[in-house]
Amino acid sequence: MSAVPSLSAPDPVLRSGGSAPERNPAVTALQQALGAKVAVDLQTRTSRSRDRSHLPHGVADAVVRCASTEDVAAAVRICAAHGVPVVPIGAGTGLEGGANARPGWVSIDLSPMDRILRLGPADLDATVQAGVLKSQLNAALEPLGLWFPAGPGVDASFGGMASTSASGTMAVRYGTLRENVLGLTVVLASGQVVRTGGRARKSAAGYDLTRLFVGAEGTLGIITEVTVRLHGQPEAVSAAVCSFPTLADATLVVQEAVQAGIPVARVELLDEAMVAAVNAYSATGLPEAAALFFEFHGTPRSVQEQAGQLREIAAAHGGTGFDAAVGPQERDRLWQARTDVLPSCQALLAGSVTWSTDVCVPISRLAECITATQADIAASGVTAPIAGHAGDGNFHLAFVLAPDDEQAHAAAAGVNERMVARALAMGGTCTGEHGIGMGKLAALAAEHGPGVQVMAAVKAALDPQHILNPGKVLA
Amino acid sequence: MSAVPSLSAPDPVLRSGGSAPERNPAVTALQQALGAKVAVDLQTRTSRSRDRSHLPHGVADAVVRCASTEDVAAAVRICAAHGVPVVPIGAGTGLEGGANARPGWVSIDLSPMDRILRLGPADLDATVQAGVLKSQLNAALEPLGLWFPAGPGVDASFGGMASTSASGTMAVRYGTLRENVLGLTVVLASGQVVRTGGRARKSAAGYDLTRLFVGAEGTLGIITEVTVRLHGQPEAVSAAVCSFPTLADATLVVQEAVQAGIPVARVELLDEAMVAAVNAYSATGLPEAAALFFEFHGTPRSVQEQAGQLREIAAAHGGTGFDAAVGPQERDRLWQARTDVLPSCQALLAGSVTWSTDVCVPISRLAECITATQADIAASGVTAPIAGHAGDGNFHLAFVLAPDDEQAHAAAAGVNERMVARALAMGGTCTGEHGIGMGKLAALAAEHGPGVQVMAAVKAALDPQHILNPGKVLA
Repeated sequence: MSAVPSLSAPDPVLRSGGSAPERNPAVTALQQALGAKVAVDLQTRTSRSRDRSHLPHGVADAVVRCASTEDVAAAVRICAAHGVPVVPIGAGTGLEGGANARPGWVSIDLSPMDRILRLGPADLDATVQAGVLKSQLNAALEPLGLWFPAGPGVDASFGGMASTSASGTMAVRYGTLRENVLGLTVVLASGQVVRTGGRARKSAAGYDLTRLFVGAEGTLGIITEVTVRLHGQPEAVSAAVCSFPTLADATLVVQEAVQAGIPVARVELLDEAMVAAVNAYSATGLPEAAALFFEFHGTPRSVQEQAGQLREIAAAHGGTGFDAAVGPQERDRLWQARTDVLPSCQALLAGSVTWSTDVCVPISRLAECITATQADIAASGVTAPIAGHAGDGNFHLAFVLAPDDEQAHAAAAGVNERMVARALAMGGTCTGEHGIGMGKLAALAAEHGPGVQVMAAVKAALDPQHILNPGKVLA
Repeated sequence: MSAVPSLSAPDPVLRSGGSAPERNPAVTALQQALGAKVAVDLQTRTSRSRDRSHLPHGVADAVVRCASTEDVAAAVRICAAHGVPVVPIGAGTGLEGGANARPGWVSIDLSPMDRILRLGPADLDATVQAGVLKSQLNAALEPLGLWFPAGPGVDASFGGMASTSASGTMAVRYGTLRENVLGLTVVLASGQVVRTGGRARKSAAGYDLTRLFVGAEGTLGIITEVTVRLHGQPEAVSAAVCSFPTLADATLVVQEAVQAGIPVARVELLDEAMVAAVNAYSATGLPEAAALFFEFHGTPRSVQEQAGQLREIAAAHGGTGFDAAVGPQERDRLWQARTDVLPSCQALLAGSVTWSTDVCVPISRLAECITATQADIAASGVTAPIAGHAGDGNFHLAFVLAPDDEQAHAAAAGVNERMVARALAMGGTCTGEHGIGMGKLAALAAEHGPGVQVMAAVKAALDPQHILNPGKVLA
């Protein structure tokens, strides 16, 4: 499970300095059809051939900067005719190599598709192009008293969030992208365009193609437009931070809160190492102990009620410093610090790379899984602070690695492999929200066994040439 | 869209009195492998060859009463070897012919699979066999303070509810089966068994096979076990009924409540005709006018708050009689009356059959869609009271028809066809919760266009022989 797939060929551009695009007839055809939208300069190709992961990548032969679904369809049709693989990329914030390209491939850049197509305040929905960022939609929704709370802390695009079934800190209350996508426009491997789902809140009409494409990481089709549910901005918000004697204590508080059905909007777990990293990076001044960050949404009364219930549970587990009266500015600062866990970790070691990985387990096993993982980290001698969307049973490690330290990389791979095996043995999943990409292919097989053959049959049916982001999700 | 698919051959058993099973080599092989679990008597075959719809059905050649996933797998393997179609049936409460058999087919009866396999109160989940009824799980959950609120009022089985993506009166608050199924055990067309999903609250691991099988009506695989989310029983519950001058007024109240984000647990709309039918059948004594039935769940405080907000909105639209202080017994009686809308309609005409159909539209179009449909009903001279899960934008007609009145059947088909077209033109769906079955094949094509080809490709990939409930969902 630890083996990282190696690229079958080193990048010819980087190796030779020559121009691979000139040798790729699909690129010539793309240029004829799409003109200046097709970038072949090395800088563009390099920057648009990878996500934020530590995983290997090549450089695509061309980047098609798509402005519309029609551009994507045209590009895919041309690539299909030449048997050339395509890989979609939006904000490029993925963590498992989902957007990583290889030489000979064409990168379908959706970031120019940045138009909000429709706001439907009366139906609490909106339709956006795939390249629209979460922050952009939320800025447009703010004056309407609405927002889109799902998705990661990093400012991701809707195409990418839908493609990885993203979730983030508020999934415990508002659901993941899976629950918040109502419909999609998708370009298929043939270049044909289909619309899935619709604007009704629910439907029993045929197979759920929407949820088939959500989380498929661009391997079954390229998502170009997304219709999402919106939520009303909460009338009242309060936040709290609480420190605990041990990580297990903090985790038990989360378990009990979830079991009691308290509708907490966010409940984030940071281990001692992560609190130290965050303190150093964001000057948060928290006690260096396991901590929970809470946020409560509702009417002023219900927010008060929820905070009171949580304070009691926390106190029963030795929690200290619970203060639900944090003001809006302090609250924003706190959550920004939580959002910045990856740069906080990276700052622990000058010149380091981070490798972020996640698993998700049934909440009753969270304390056991997370403490066993922490012990493994200590025994393995790697630096890997822990943070998690604990209310979902989802947690992350951020390995902090010197780029050339092969021994540390191998140790990290071992910790990751054992963490995945531990999560699966507990009835959990190898990834709660980062996706499979190219980093967790073996983990997917371990988790789903014969189910992977079903996935492969679906893939073969929808992409018989295997040109849609091949080697991702499925080997 | 109105054409009901006719059976290609009349049932040879009913026609000749002879024994079709003896002419079907798959039945002999099934008897050899599964012994007394294989029923060939006419009474069993007749009773297990249809759902509750008005749609045509034949009689299966045999009924395999399955007690385990292994039984289902064995039966499907044998039928696959003989190229014989199989159709799963559980409680048989479907409304679009999804469980209807034809001569030559084998009915896979899942109702003997009635074991609750696991209750996980610490994780708010449970795993049940496909034949377990909703009432049965809820009886087991009651002492634990938990429940499963999703699904229809009729006592359906988990296999059937998952297969049709059922929703019911509380979907507006707790979601449909789509959101409440965590994992499945499925027998594929080959007889192979796969497990999808898991017990983690969320996962980004590969394609979402769970949601592919949910709503597929047994055409991609036969669901034999279902892992579902559970919910805590609400601390406090209150209910209210409110009458309105017009159906449009009542609908606008629902729209405004949804737009305001009031977390109502149930909000059911009944038109004047349906209130009259319910009054006659259940002696509810309501004013004969459009009505809304509400239920609020939460803490005592929040329930009071929600009811107060709704009372204000209702009053602004001429609502009268809003009384949120209804006691538990009166509440149960009220909701039982709501659950009994179909028998209430059937009782309107001695010896009648009912034909229940549903659509779902964006909430902002609900008033317009429902009043236009009511006008069409009046103009068409059919009896078709309306009830709806209005909070989702979902509503139902129950046509009340004399079995031999071909003119009334044709008029009903016309009303249904125009209602579907109206819903689609408004961005809605041809069915919010009943499914496609055999009754809405043309409607699915109208709704999803090229998406139906994608569905067909998935079907062909997973069931290349087309033995899984053929002719359902896809023509």
